[in-house]
Amino acid sequence: MSGNLGECEFVIEDGLGQIEMLDAEIGAWTYVDHAGARGRARQLDQSAERGPLYGMSVGVKDIIDVAGMPTTYGSDIYAGNIATQDAACVALARAAGAVIIGKTSTTELAGPHPAKTRNPQNPEHTPGGSSSGSAAAVAAGMVRIAMGTQTAGSVIRPAAYCGVVGFKPTFGLVPRNGVKLQSDTLDTVGVFARTVDDAAHWYTAMIGARASPLPLIGKGALRILLVSNLMERAEVDMSVAIAEGAEALTAAGLRVREVRLPEAFDVAQLDQRIIQLAEMSRLYASEHRHFRDQLSDELVALLDEGAAIPADKYQAALARTDAARKQVALLFADCDAMLMPSATGAAPKGLSSTGDPVFNRLASTLHLPAVNIPVYRSKKRMPLGLQLVGARLQDEKLLAIAKRVIELLRNNTHD
Amino acid sequence: MSGNLGECEFVIEDGLGQIEMLDAEIGAWTYVDHAGARGRARQLDQSAERGPLYGMSVGVKDIIDVAGMPTTYGSDIYAGNIATQDAACVALARAAGAVIIGKTSTTELAGPHPAKTRNPQNPEHTPGGSSSGSAAAVAAGMVRIAMGTQTAGSVIRPAAYCGVVGFKPTFGLVPRNGVKLQSDTLDTVGVFARTVDDAAHWYTAMIGARASPLPLIGKGALRILLVSNLMERAEVDMSVAIAEGAEALTAAGLRVREVRLPEAFDVAQLDQRIIQLAEMSRLYASEHRHFRDQLSDELVALLDEGAAIPADKYQAALARTDAARKQVALLFADCDAMLMPSATGAAPKGLSSTGDPVFNRLASTLHLPAVNIPVYRSKKRMPLGLQLVGARLQDEKLLAIAKRVIELLRNNTHD
Repeated sequence: MSGNLGECEFVIEDGLGQIEMLDAEIGAWTYVDHAGARGRARQLDQSAERGPLYGMSVGVKDIIDVAGMPTTYGSDIYAGNIATQDAACVALARAAGAVIIGKTSTTELAGPHPAKTRNPQNPEHTPGGSSSGSAAAVAAGMVRIAMGTQTAGSVIRPAAYCGVVGFKPTFGLVPRNGVKLQSDTLDTVGVFARTVDDAAHWYTAMIGARASPLPLIGKGALRILLVSNLMERAEVDMSVAIAEGAEALTAAGLRVREVRLPEAFDVAQLDQRIIQLAEMSRLYASEHRHFRDQLSDELVALLDEGAAIPADKYQAALARTDAARKQVALLFADCDAMLMPSATGAAPKGLSSTGDPVFNRLASTLHLPAVNIPVYRSKKRMPLGLQLVGARLQDEKLLAIAKRVIELLRNNTHD
Repeated sequence: MSGNLGECEFVIEDGLGQIEMLDAEIGAWTYVDHAGARGRARQLDQSAERGPLYGMSVGVKDIIDVAGMPTTYGSDIYAGNIATQDAACVALARAAGAVIIGKTSTTELAGPHPAKTRNPQNPEHTPGGSSSGSAAAVAAGMVRIAMGTQTAGSVIRPAAYCGVVGFKPTFGLVPRNGVKLQSDTLDTVGVFARTVDDAAHWYTAMIGARASPLPLIGKGALRILLVSNLMERAEVDMSVAIAEGAEALTAAGLRVREVRLPEAFDVAQLDQRIIQLAEMSRLYASEHRHFRDQLSDELVALLDEGAAIPADKYQAALARTDAARKQVALLFADCDAMLMPSATGAAPKGLSSTGDPVFNRLASTLHLPAVNIPVYRSKKRMPLGLQLVGARLQDEKLLAIAKRVIELLRNNTHD
C-alpha cells in the first residue's frame, strides 16, 4: 500500500494529504513545509536513531520559531519575518526524531482576536484559542502532535473544544527560548495529542529524559478531589458530564471527594487575570508602543487595561498567588489529582470568540500540570472536556492518572 | 560650552566622545548607533514628555534585541543577525525617555567564554561577566545606565569588579521578550548604574510605574543579617571589607547580626548550578544540537554536562529550591536585608575567566533582589563590592536601604 515509501515517509505523506484535503476549510496552518517534511522523513527512514518522537509529525504554534519558516504571531506586524533559529522546544523535538510539518494558526499575539481556524468537529464552532491551529490540526488528523502555549487556558480549552488530549506541564519545565512570551510568570509550552502516551513522549523529549513508559500508579485507590468552585459557571451539559465522570470513577474504585477549595483559590483565579494583563502590557511593550495602529481593537483594549494596572496592585496579586501556590501543595498531600471542567461547556458556536478560560486560570496561575480528558460529548455531539490537575513537578504521575481515567471513562460511556 | 546643542544632545555627545576615546582599549561595545542616538536626543530636547529615564543614555547587553541593531549573543553563529523588534525592556526604556546607544559585549551566549572587554579600573583585569560590556560601559562613563542579565552572578559580580551599582530585581518583574534565555527559572534582567537613584529610575520604567522617589525607610533601626555562609571562600581583602562595613553600619545605629543560614541554603546554592546547567542545555538546544562546532570548548563542556543531568536530579533540585524559597521568606520577617560579599574579592587579573559567582548564586536561585554596594577597594585599589539582598517583591525597599548604606559607608571611609 505504501509503494516505495519508507515508514516515516508514508506517515508524513498521509498527514500532508489530510492537510491538502481539509485545510482550506479548517485553516489550521499558516505555513506547511512539504519539502522539508518529506526530506526529514526520508532521512529518518534511513537512520538507526530512535528518539521518543521518532517519525512523529509535529505542528508548531506560530508564536514559536522554526528555523527558516515565517513566524508571524498572528499579526500583520510580523509579515515577512523569517526565524533564523529553532526555538529550544523545536530543537528538542527534532533531536527526539520529530518531523516538523509547519506552523499552526494562532490568535493575534496569542490574545483575544481569533485566528482563521475552524473547529474540525463542526466548522461553525470556534476551535478555542489561542493555540487554535494546533488543536485543530491534531483533531483533523493532520499531525500526530502539535505544540501550543497556555497563559490562561490556551492549551486545555482548545483541546477540550476540539476533542483531543491537551497537556500543559508544570510551569517552567519546557524551555521557552524562541517562544514569544505574553506573561513571563505564567506562559507554559504544552502539547495537543490524540493519546496520553503521545503527550508523554513529547514531555520526555522536552525535559531531555530518555524514553520510558509512564510510571505505574500505586496500588492504593487514586484519590481525586472534585472541585466545586466555579461550577455555577458550567453549562448543564458540562455539569452532567462532570457528575457522570465522578460517578464512573467512583464505581471503578477511585476515591472521589467533592470539595470547595478555600477562598484564596477563588482570589488566585481572579488574580491570574491581573497578572496576565499587567505582564502582557509590558512583554508586548514594543508592539503596544510602536505598532498600536496595526493591532486589533480587542488587543489594544487589553494592553491599555494592563498598562493601567498600578504596580502595587500587580505585585499584591503576585504575593497572594505565591501564598496560594504554597497552600495548594498541602492539598496534594491528600489527593492525587483534582477534577474540574476544561471549559464552561462545548465549543461555542461562531468564530468571533475563542471561549471562556475561567476553568483554566487556576492551574495556570498555580503552575500546576493539567490534562484535558476528551471522553464526553454534549447533547449536540460536540466534545466536552474534563480537566485533571496534578501537583507541581508530578507531571508523569498526572499523565499516568489521565491515561487510566480515560480508559475507565471510555469503558463506561455508551458513545 | 555646549554650543547649539540641546541638553539631551549634549549629554549624549559626551558619552559618545567617551566611547570614541576609550573603547578601543575597553571593548565594551559590539555596536554603537551614533546617528540613532543623536536623532533621539534631538527629538527628546524638543519634546515636553519627561519619563523616568528622560535623556538617559542606555547600553544594552548583546543578548537583548534592539530593533535594527545586530544581536550576536557573543557568538559567530549569529553573525549578520539583525533584530526586527525591540525587546520588551528596551521598548519600556524608550517609552520612559531613554536614548539607546547600542549593544554591549557579552560573553559567548552569556556563558563562561569571555568577551573582549577589559575592566576600566585596570585593563589587565577581567570586568566580570557575562554582562561584561554593560558593567564596563557604565564604569567608564560611556553611558548613564546599561542593562544586563543574571542567571548566577552576571550583574552583581561585574558591577562589583568594575565598581558601579548593580541591581538585579526580584525574578519575574522585568519582562523578557527579546531576551535570550539561558535558564528560564533564574534569568533576570538587571541594570548597571553609577547611583542607586538611577537604578531605581530604571526599575520604575521596567515595572511600568510612574516616576516616584524611593520610599522612606521606617523609623526603627534597619535590621541587617550578616551572612557568614561561604565566607571561607572570600579573600582576605573582602573579609576585611565586610567586617569594616558591618562595623560602620552598627556604629551608625543599624542592627547588624551575624548569622549562619541553615544548611538548606547551602544546598540551594549548589542546586542553583544544577538548575542552571540543566535548563541551559535545553534552552540552548538549537545551538548545542545544530551548531556545536561553532561553540567554544568551555561552553560545549557545560552544555554536555547539563544535558547529562538526569531529569529526576534536576527536578529534585527544583523541589528543594522551592522549599528554600519558602524558608527564606521567614528569615525576612526578622530582617530588612542580608549583607554578604558580591564576589570572592576584587576582579582577578587576566581576561581568561570572568570570576567566581559563588556569592551570587543564592540571591539568584531564591529569586531575591540584590544590589552591589561599590564603596570599598582592595589593597591594590581595585573595587570590592558588598552585596545587599532583599525580600522578594521588596525591590524599592531594598534600593532605599542600599542608598542609605552607601551614604553611611562613604561617610565612613577614608578613600
